[in-house]
Amino acid sequence: MEGRYDTPKVKERLAQLQFFLLLNEQQQMEFAAHVNFRELRKGEKLQQLGKDYGGCIHLITKGLVSIRKYSVNGERIASLPLGVDDFCSFEYIVGEGVSNYEIMTLTPVSIAAVPVQFFKKLIGSNQAALEFIISGTRTILGDMLNHRSIFALSRPRIRVITFLLYLSKKAGDPSEDGSRPVPEWLTQTELALMAGTTRETVCATFKALQQDGGLVTEGKRLRLGMAFYEKYKVSV
Amino acid sequence: MEGRYDTPKVKERLAQLQFFLLLNEQQQMEFAAHVNFRELRKGEKLQQLGKDYGGCIHLITKGLVSIRKYSVNGERIASLPLGVDDFCSFEYIVGEGVSNYEIMTLTPVSIAAVPVQFFKKLIGSNQAALEFIISGTRTILGDMLNHRSIFALSRPRIRVITFLLYLSKKAGDPSEDGSRPVPEWLTQTELALMAGTTRETVCATFKALQQDGGLVTEGKRLRLGMAFYEKYKVSV
Repeated sequence: MEGRYDTPKVKERLAQLQFFLLLNEQQQMEFAAHVNFRELRKGEKLQQLGKDYGGCIHLITKGLVSIRKYSVNGERIASLPLGVDDFCSFEYIVGEGVSNYEIMTLTPVSIAAVPVQFFKKLIGSNQAALEFIISGTRTILGDMLNHRSIFALSRPRIRVITFLLYLSKKAGDPSEDGSRPVPEWLTQTELALMAGTTRETVCATFKALQQDGGLVTEGKRLRLGMAFYEKYKVSV
Repeated sequence: MEGRYDTPKVKERLAQLQFFLLLNEQQQMEFAAHVNFRELRKGEKLQQLGKDYGGCIHLITKGLVSIRKYSVNGERIASLPLGVDDFCSFEYIVGEGVSNYEIMTLTPVSIAAVPVQFFKKLIGSNQAALEFIISGTRTILGDMLNHRSIFALSRPRIRVITFLLYLSKKAGDPSEDGSRPVPEWLTQTELALMAGTTRETVCATFKALQQDGGLVTEGKRLRLGMAFYEKYKVSV
């Protein structure tokens, strides 16, 4: 198995994996012997609701997935987007409980998968690997507490607008004119799920923002323009 | 310092501490040399908003605290109740970030506190202690995802009612007649914070529930009566 570590392609992919770089030489060899790489298209399911937990930890090297929770009558009711820095923390902490969620890709996703038992051994014997998991979990808890603050806003439109701002801020720095791109994966349906409202309300909010110049179209992408910041002195 | 371990009172308190029982003999000796016990009254602050993180991990042996998040204009906007099984996981994961929250007791609370550096060493060298932290974090993530589902309900009254059911279920088994006690710590203000609504809405919801017989007074305590379950076929 160790031979796999020597192929240039595997070496290159492992070098992109932040987690891998935290391991000592012996652990890196073992990791290379256990790892499998997968590519998922946008919209693919990594975990189907109610299906047994597959027993692998997935380290995302590119892209985003959404953790979806369903109500007992099968309605989708919450979505939490996770990626490179935090998805494996979620999977490691939740363990078998992952079968209670649906996990779907929001963008094309690259994954390095290792068996959970092997991964647990690494975490238990490598302080830096443990810190990596804790740091990802810290991000998730912080995000969820911020989301709660947004949920506490009583008007659905203000929730939609505040989520737009929050997610655009997370996605990267503003351009020179101070405007920010709306993340490409953030469809109206996804935003409705995150903000606890309907797609119709999101659609109406987008229309109002576009009329104000708060939301501007640039090719196929949407941006939050300066008018947005002037009008909504919202903070997260 | 080791002498402290030998006083009957300290021995008794340590024996109540689930975390302590996971340690080996050597670790137990060290723990006993580092631990401090504290008693807090209901309504005391364990952490003041913005105050530096004190550098201790607090293991709760009795009672509940609320993690409070404030908006930039100083409004209380979210509350997450934690206790014996999960509070130290929150503190361990969030670390210095704890200074972004206010932590207040919801009931009288008993605490065993140890320095965070010592605690980290224990977690890094004891698989059972690590599992304890992970299990607590799993509970927090599960609760927060359930809360999100409740937040996604658009009508504030239904959110209040669903939280009442959720928290009463968590608090214990129903009595013979199928009714459940409302947790004593759950004031109308706390419930408003959790459900993302106003105390006025909670008050109006309680009145309507009392008229229906869904909420019944028993001495100073409130119970969810059978009428509650018949009327609201809500599920969490």
